Amino acid sequence: MGRGVAGDCWLGLDLGGSHISVVALDVRGAAVHRAGEPVNRLWTHDRIIARMVALLRDAADQCRREGYRVAAAGVGLPGVVDLASGTALFLPNLPGQWRGVPVRAMVAEGLGVPVAVVNDARAFTVAEHQHGAGRGSGHMLGLVIGTGIGGGLILDGRPYLGAERRAGEMGHTTVDPNGLPCGCGNRGCLETIASGPAIAAAAARVVLQGHPSTLGTLVDHDLNRLTPQVVGAAAAEGDAAALAVIRRAGEAVGIAMANLIEVLNPECVVIGGGVALAGEPLFDAIRQTVRERARTVDVDNVRIVPATLGIDAGMIGAAVWARDYQEVT
Amino acid sequence: MGRGVAGDCWLGLDLGGSHISVVALDVRGAAVHRAGEPVNRLWTHDRIIARMVALLRDAADQCRREGYRVAAAGVGLPGVVDLASGTALFLPNLPGQWRGVPVRAMVAEGLGVPVAVVNDARAFTVAEHQHGAGRGSGHMLGLVIGTGIGGGLILDGRPYLGAERRAGEMGHTTVDPNGLPCGCGNRGCLETIASGPAIAAAAARVVLQGHPSTLGTLVDHDLNRLTPQVVGAAAAEGDAAALAVIRRAGEAVGIAMANLIEVLNPECVVIGGGVALAGEPLFDAIRQTVRERARTVDVDNVRIVPATLGIDAGMIGAAVWARDYQEVT
Repeated sequence: MGRGVAGDCWLGLDLGGSHISVVALDVRGAAVHRAGEPVNRLWTHDRIIARMVALLRDAADQCRREGYRVAAAGVGLPGVVDLASGTALFLPNLPGQWRGVPVRAMVAEGLGVPVAVVNDARAFTVAEHQHGAGRGSGHMLGLVIGTGIGGGLILDGRPYLGAERRAGEMGHTTVDPNGLPCGCGNRGCLETIASGPAIAAAAARVVLQGHPSTLGTLVDHDLNRLTPQVVGAAAAEGDAAALAVIRRAGEAVGIAMANLIEVLNPECVVIGGGVALAGEPLFDAIRQTVRERARTVDVDNVRIVPATLGIDAGMIGAAVWARDYQEVT
Repeated sequence: MGRGVAGDCWLGLDLGGSHISVVALDVRGAAVHRAGEPVNRLWTHDRIIARMVALLRDAADQCRREGYRVAAAGVGLPGVVDLASGTALFLPNLPGQWRGVPVRAMVAEGLGVPVAVVNDARAFTVAEHQHGAGRGSGHMLGLVIGTGIGGGLILDGRPYLGAERRAGEMGHTTVDPNGLPCGCGNRGCLETIASGPAIAAAAARVVLQGHPSTLGTLVDHDLNRLTPQVVGAAAAEGDAAALAVIRRAGEAVGIAMANLIEVLNPECVVIGGGVALAGEPLFDAIRQTVRERARTVDVDNVRIVPATLGIDAGMIGAAVWARDYQEVT
């Protein structure tokens, strides 16, 4: 899979709402350098890009000192990007004003190597496909469930992008036609039921309504601490109310994935992001729902598995994109 | 697109529950020969295959007399087929017992040219993509709404088949999680709401419950004559009850298509089959629902259009499959 020659390396950067992470991968996909620093919520986009360039330059310098040639760099951004031009279109969770910012040109100018810009959910998908839970699968769905829900597709062994290179918005497929309003303008999107905030809100309701549950004491009645991981752990310990919260999210994910399994007949669904930390109770509900609903395919042939690269997936995927798919952009 | 050389032709056969249709296409896609005959519901699969071979041999003889070389033949079957082996797996709407019948080998032996076997919804999709409403689109969804609902995908310019070559089962995506049971074992599948029988049943309910409507008189109170085409015509004439029936089906199709537009970002959705004859009231409801629900893509860039090849799509698609995609099988 890896292009280039022994001695080449590829840089990957993941820009999140609170952190910049950088990795350098060698031709075998091993991380030969890592760096990172927090993002200040008061910074402008120019300031953030300057820090991104500085971190990438440091990484490049270090790689070169170790004898590597830096072949290219990938930058993963949290939101809608124009792949062809490398321009940010809509990055709602970042400090600064990013609409129309030519990120690729700005980073490439400062860095002096070719740069590819990619959406973070697609970076996650290619990282898990090449180096994580989806390795070896020709047809894979990648789903990242966090504050929002993003996705990516590997079809016939390659990233699938679609007519306008916007494919993969699984978080905005309808799973409940009469459901709650979504930020996108639709109702009943997967994101309204299974995102981190949706799960936290459902758990908060359990606490606020005084249902019998350990959730309140687990977080000292501080609703801000009701993460999907906490709710998943309570569910795994047998807390019925927590399990009901996780099951409802898992059933929604299961409906959306069953629909895509019927239409796309993948081998593998890899699920990551903070909500995946809810663990087995969540995956059990997803798998059971897929088994009940995806009836025209043999679901025993579809692996539904947690991502394995954790928070590294974004930066690894950005480097993989620069290494393997730059020509796609 | 067309392979082969001037002077080549390709045969296509569409086997339906009541009719066999055959066409020969030249290298430009023009029909140079057509034939067909009814299928007797009492025939065995052996008898039907013998008639298929006879019709294809007649077509081949005629093409050769006109100076063509018969390059290959495609056979479209209504149900689940194994593309690699050309074996019928599940053809519930045909007379005879088809499970495990090696259709490709049997037809090829009788005909003496290479044969490809394909599912009829995929044949529809490649026919409309190459010679119908989807011409020129690189990313197209094909949907055939009849007794059942089948589908096919053109992604990055080619048919997409998936890991087990079963992709395209859009009729069995969930659009109403708490909906009616479907024959597949799931609940609330698109097929339970928008198939021909589902629309006929909803129209029958209008008549049986005595709602104010022209539907009863339009069919002389013969519920057997309540086809989607009749209901669509009544809706177009302003019959509110008929329009409500069509709108409910259109909204279900719209939800399923909006979900796939979010995930696959196609340029074009081509809808055929008997239900598409309900016409503009149906397409209006589909387009409006997609506009309301597919919010992360620019739906003005997605054409949602009726198929243009009518009942010829199946046989044309079988010939197109033999011509362009035989290596895929």
